[in-house]
Amino acid sequence: MCQLLGMNCNVPTDICFSFEGFSARGGKTDHHSDGWGIAFFEGKGCRIFLDAKPSIDSPIADFVRCYPIHSTHVIAHIRKATQGEVALENCHPFRRELWGRYWVFAHNGNLPDFQPPIQSFYQAVGHTDSEKAFCLILETLRQSFPEGKPSLEKLYPVLQQVTKTLAAIGVFNYLLSDGEHFFTHCSTNLSYIVRQAPFAAAHLIDQDMTVDFNELTTPSDRVAVIATTPLTDNEVWTPIQPGELLVFQDGLPLRHIFN
Amino acid sequence: MCQLLGMNCNVPTDICFSFEGFSARGGKTDHHSDGWGIAFFEGKGCRIFLDAKPSIDSPIADFVRCYPIHSTHVIAHIRKATQGEVALENCHPFRRELWGRYWVFAHNGNLPDFQPPIQSFYQAVGHTDSEKAFCLILETLRQSFPEGKPSLEKLYPVLQQVTKTLAAIGVFNYLLSDGEHFFTHCSTNLSYIVRQAPFAAAHLIDQDMTVDFNELTTPSDRVAVIATTPLTDNEVWTPIQPGELLVFQDGLPLRHIFN
Repeated sequence: MCQLLGMNCNVPTDICFSFEGFSARGGKTDHHSDGWGIAFFEGKGCRIFLDAKPSIDSPIADFVRCYPIHSTHVIAHIRKATQGEVALENCHPFRRELWGRYWVFAHNGNLPDFQPPIQSFYQAVGHTDSEKAFCLILETLRQSFPEGKPSLEKLYPVLQQVTKTLAAIGVFNYLLSDGEHFFTHCSTNLSYIVRQAPFAAAHLIDQDMTVDFNELTTPSDRVAVIATTPLTDNEVWTPIQPGELLVFQDGLPLRHIFN
Repeated sequence: MCQLLGMNCNVPTDICFSFEGFSARGGKTDHHSDGWGIAFFEGKGCRIFLDAKPSIDSPIADFVRCYPIHSTHVIAHIRKATQGEVALENCHPFRRELWGRYWVFAHNGNLPDFQPPIQSFYQAVGHTDSEKAFCLILETLRQSFPEGKPSLEKLYPVLQQVTKTLAAIGVFNYLLSDGEHFFTHCSTNLSYIVRQAPFAAAHLIDQDMTVDFNELTTPSDRVAVIATTPLTDNEVWTPIQPGELLVFQDGLPLRHIFN
């Protein structure tokens, strides 16, 4: 299995603190050492850093830990290979273009014997079940809305339906974003925390490191952090329920819209 | 206008020396300071580093200059904005998936008033003529060969035709690769050099820096470097002819096949 880390904010924020603890799980505090990756949206633009090396040994991960990139939508992943060899093309997150926007996807879980038919639009480059599932999701969205991105209210049930179909095959926790909306699906393990004023100090589980967000933020900032398991030991994380597809925007879960 | 740098080799090679001189043109020895990017293929996998900052001020460019990434197909670009604001989504190289492979593209030139109709498969995310031209090229290849990547002999004339159509609109120097073949089109300025045994020392134009490739290579290595203008002052670079679409594979131009 792998581990997921996501961030969605109302103002561009760096993820250095969370990534510090998260990337330690790539071979130091945990055994997810078959590669890693992180995607940052900046407006419609998107940059992805990937490496097939364990995140604790990767010079690129060192760089990302130290260089604050400010983004409103971040998706990170550390890999423990189940399907597909250890190779760059099998590292998450994956990216494709749909409706003139980049879509980015990372998966934690395993879809055994998943062999979808060849899609019309999207084909996997690597050999993971995850990339194939991502292609099927985008294909479904594209064919359902050929004219362009619909409202979230129309998109949500279609995404929910294809997610349910895939989650019936195996464990399917995922993070998915187009830089506008941030979708999270929990199959087994996914939790989140929303940090907003009044801000306090947070202490990492995987490193003895504390940050006082009060010193780094303004009162209107709001940041949601989503992770396979909580990253801090002095804050209350909310588990996303198994089977739940939760959408974040501007650092807030949009629970009220869909329940 | 912008500047292009490409590398195609028979064994994975790092581009640190060439990128050192090339990236100096992003605001130091030349005025291409509206962003930069570089793509590295590693097998079917591909990683891209992008920044909207000038390459001489970019911590990510610093990292790429110092960290040797070994690749057989590299495409780099420094940008002087003509169409599209200075923003991450307008930085080259661009990437899309076609036939289960990543395709990467960078353009030097300008296609004035280029407004292609909306494509079925590929849409631009940013606002450059370059990304629109890339989408049109991939759309044309995809519709011509819906079953998958054809032989180079079949692909070449289709690519040549769509390239001609685009080059009739304006200046259209480009580098394009899927990690297997490396296509270069010269509209006005593009030169290359093939380095192979016996290797010698090379001295950069843009920095006082010399590398003796004899110390870094094995006798069977072969590396083609392609650039808008020559990067070294003690080697003989071959200009690609205006109107020529030249394909490289394993560090060699495949002139004999298509002439």
